[in-house]
Amino acid sequence: MTEQNPAPATASSAEDALARSTDEASLARSLARSEQIQADLDVNPGRYRMLTGVRPTGNMHLGHYFGTMRSWKAIQDRGVDTWILVADYQVITDRDGVGPIRERVLSLVADTLAVGVDPSRSTVFAHSAVPAANQLILPFLSLVTESELHRNPTVKAELEATAGRAMSGLMLTYPVHQAADILFCQANLVPVGKDQLPHLEQARLIAQRFDRRYGRAVKDHPVFRRPEALLSEAPLLLGLDGEKMSKSRHNTIELRMSADETAAVLKKAKTDSQRVITFDPAARPEVSNLLTLASLCGAGAPEQIAESIGDAGAGALKALVTEAVNEYFAPVRARRAELVADEAHLLAVLRQGNDRAREVAQTTLDAVRTAMHMTY
Amino acid sequence: MTEQNPAPATASSAEDALARSTDEASLARSLARSEQIQADLDVNPGRYRMLTGVRPTGNMHLGHYFGTMRSWKAIQDRGVDTWILVADYQVITDRDGVGPIRERVLSLVADTLAVGVDPSRSTVFAHSAVPAANQLILPFLSLVTESELHRNPTVKAELEATAGRAMSGLMLTYPVHQAADILFCQANLVPVGKDQLPHLEQARLIAQRFDRRYGRAVKDHPVFRRPEALLSEAPLLLGLDGEKMSKSRHNTIELRMSADETAAVLKKAKTDSQRVITFDPAARPEVSNLLTLASLCGAGAPEQIAESIGDAGAGALKALVTEAVNEYFAPVRARRAELVADEAHLLAVLRQGNDRAREVAQTTLDAVRTAMHMTY
Repeated sequence: MTEQNPAPATASSAEDALARSTDEASLARSLARSEQIQADLDVNPGRYRMLTGVRPTGNMHLGHYFGTMRSWKAIQDRGVDTWILVADYQVITDRDGVGPIRERVLSLVADTLAVGVDPSRSTVFAHSAVPAANQLILPFLSLVTESELHRNPTVKAELEATAGRAMSGLMLTYPVHQAADILFCQANLVPVGKDQLPHLEQARLIAQRFDRRYGRAVKDHPVFRRPEALLSEAPLLLGLDGEKMSKSRHNTIELRMSADETAAVLKKAKTDSQRVITFDPAARPEVSNLLTLASLCGAGAPEQIAESIGDAGAGALKALVTEAVNEYFAPVRARRAELVADEAHLLAVLRQGNDRAREVAQTTLDAVRTAMHMTY
Repeated sequence: MTEQNPAPATASSAEDALARSTDEASLARSLARSEQIQADLDVNPGRYRMLTGVRPTGNMHLGHYFGTMRSWKAIQDRGVDTWILVADYQVITDRDGVGPIRERVLSLVADTLAVGVDPSRSTVFAHSAVPAANQLILPFLSLVTESELHRNPTVKAELEATAGRAMSGLMLTYPVHQAADILFCQANLVPVGKDQLPHLEQARLIAQRFDRRYGRAVKDHPVFRRPEALLSEAPLLLGLDGEKMSKSRHNTIELRMSADETAAVLKKAKTDSQRVITFDPAARPEVSNLLTLASLCGAGAPEQIAESIGDAGAGALKALVTEAVNEYFAPVRARRAELVADEAHLLAVLRQGNDRAREVAQTTLDAVRTAMHMTY
């Protein structure tokens, strides 16, 4: 179109802050603040809106459940306004097709409701369904420099991991999309692992720069709320092969599995050659991981479980874990089975969430337009 | 959010095609095709939707008028569905603030209507008003590699021109936004100068890749129409100082100027020390430029005008040019004065255009969702 001119300069100190956001001192500050918030959540739950996002790239498994999903219900039940983003557009940041996206999205909605997220109190919505939120990417991209995108540790790791392969524009700008997801809905609480702190720092920087560069819709507060990290101390569950648990490694127990399927995958779980069962995560990671899993499912402390099995061996351990898992997840799985049988209900829940997200996004976009004087 | 994996590979031949899109052979093909379309426009105007965009960074001037604006009315009057994009978000690709954006947008709408664009037949709309169009940037970014963005000649030129300064994410992804602008409204005709051919090539590549990677909403045609260039043979008007005409150089005659203001700026126009006026663009660029301007305003061929002035000198030339410009633009300026006096009307025209654009964007986004199986 018409005319082009030089690009803006941006302070590189901000980029440094971003690159440093995973260092020790910064992490310690984030942890302390996160603990403060945890305490305040019981006193002032109404002050918070929590946003969390999941990419619908496969079936949710017990790693997801104990890592994040069970906290969704817990936070919701403490009275916090809880938002669950089904990040469908994020599926294509690093793969060439969408896969069976519709099935996966509906499956994720079913999982979400099955673990106790209540659509009458919480908002479950899809990224692609909220254009007014996605539009924020345009002004936000003006507030971020190219080198800052490259220096974001996650993007940097991607860049290094994919040596020789081409990085897509969507991956490069990923921290900006994520900032839009968080900021559009005025979430001020985002549960993250420490490796995701730079994303949150990027979102905060964008909110701050928007305020400084484009101004406000009303005098007394910025357009965007400041999002903070709720650092999760997720127990590290390994996959059944003793490696990192991952949808794509097929080493998981999925929420959707039946009791028999669970027994079958646990039967194949890797253990070791020692007959006496002991809890020793460093020396015996596979056996200890199964003990941890049983413990998470309410079978007692890992050491106690180990003692109760004694020299009955891996077979007895697996039988115990299978029973613990199946018992613990029986109600979740029963609810899930009912939910997946009723697609119309799942769609209704998602559409209700999409409507709510669109309403909030429109309010935010109106404020953005006012601040930027684009009211016409 | 949850999980990250390797990025996609993309054929580098496409990047080469993009980088080559301004070479001689490619340019000759574009010119030939553009002439074919020009001929077809009279036979089948209904086959075309034309989109053109302007950044509201200042007042429109005679360079804009003779370069592009007069063709808007001409194309509209040939029966082509004409869309004028007020590219407000593009203002911040290369500057730190929006400037007096609302005034400039309304001024641009007034200019557009004053030169004869008829809102009952044409669509005048603002970039920031169409979220469903802007959302397309997300799937589109997945279809473009980082190196392709860098190799786009316009972005490359920016990168070189701004050595040392930071490039914003918005500038880096500029070709993708422009693709979204063109493709969302299914425009198949875009008037461009040859330096903008790479942008159009990028839009075509994105449309093609979307079709290949994500598929279609209906079997028999791709989601996006193929946009083609209408190459303009814009007369090269210089600024009144003999340099490149530019809003920021203050060397222009603005459409909005009064007859007296026009006389005042022309009085200061640079000429040369020769008393006899001749048309010789190579040796006497400033004098020849004034002759060209008078000619464009209906005063006859530049050589004839020069002869009629003879040795009466620069003063006589300026008087003649002033009269020609003021006479030619009197009706445009009279309409413009009426239009700017009625802000409510300008807003109504823009809102009507925004509504129309949103309607079309929604239809396109629905097709995109169907093709990507994101229907829920």
